[in-house]
Amino acid sequence: MRLSGGVEAALHCCVVLTAATEPVPAARLAELHGVSATYLAKHLQALSRAELVHSVQGKSGGYVLTRPPEEITTLDVVEAVEGPAPTFVCAEIRQRGPMAAPPEACTAPCAITRAMIAADRAWRAALREVSIADLGRSVAQDYESDVLGQIVGWLAPAEH
Amino acid sequence: MRLSGGVEAALHCCVVLTAATEPVPAARLAELHGVSATYLAKHLQALSRAELVHSVQGKSGGYVLTRPPEEITTLDVVEAVEGPAPTFVCAEIRQRGPMAAPPEACTAPCAITRAMIAADRAWRAALREVSIADLGRSVAQDYESDVLGQIVGWLAPAEH
Ligand code: FES
Ligand code: FES
Repeated sequence: MRLSGGVEAALHCCVVLTAATEPVPAARLAELHGVSATYLAKHLQALSRAELVHSVQGKSGGYVLTRPPEEITTLDVVEAVEGPAPTFVCAEIRQRGPMAAPPEACTAPCAITRAMIAADRAWRAALREVSIADLGRSVAQDYESDVLGQIVGWLAPAEH
Repeated sequence: MRLSGGVEAALHCCVVLTAATEPVPAARLAELHGVSATYLAKHLQALSRAELVHSVQGKSGGYVLTRPPEEITTLDVVEAVEGPAPTFVCAEIRQRGPMAAPPEACTAPCAITRAMIAADRAWRAALREVSIADLGRSVAQDYESDVLGQIVGWLAPAEH
């Protein structure tokens, strides 16, 4: 079970956007991260569909966060990219074969499903605890320099 | 991110084996669960490689658990089938592009990786808390009848 590579790119973009003061064009985010524009566009569109970012049109257009970064969790970003589907899907194997449990005994999920769902919830709860604002602060603490400020400086269009 | 269907089959087999008093042939486990022998063989072999079950040879041979079911966790079974690889793999996107962090600043995982690893650990911790003995007891409590006993009765080879 492995998350797609898009999760890393999407989270890095969101963390950069926590510090941005102007809309950031998709092409600029792709260049910054050394990934192809097509690849990143797909993930930015997923973030947009999930209403975590939106695209401002026009000459100095680009992506902005739709709400304060304290209100966007790591889970929001992961689910935007991966979809909200649970990690474990029960195919009701207990209802197959010669000793199949009758349907009326299977109105509630089986013990195995319950254990798997509990673990899925623990994973999501851990991701929900960390906002992208938290991630931005941790990045700032990790480096001695104001790395997000420098990145935002690089992203900014030349002054007129 | 989704677990393979084999996890459900492997867990159901292990729970059945918690109640078995004799080795259970792979073909019989497949028939019980209404799945193909080839499909199940793959997952039983994964359980065997992980040393959770072993195959007893001979006329009344078949699979048995290698240790008490209290000592086999749901996580052991999930990792046997899925492999132990982490759910999030960082491709060091921070070291790409024009604002790449220098390698000497990247000796520790980035804040995003740390959040993802913490969530992965929470998922595994939840799965580690539940043994297959616990699952067997929950199954017994879910049904009014001794369902595992009945299944084991069905699995037993005819008396001689
Ligand atoms: S019937 Fe699906 S996990 Fe038990
Ligand atoms: S560099 Fe990989 S998650 Fe940050």
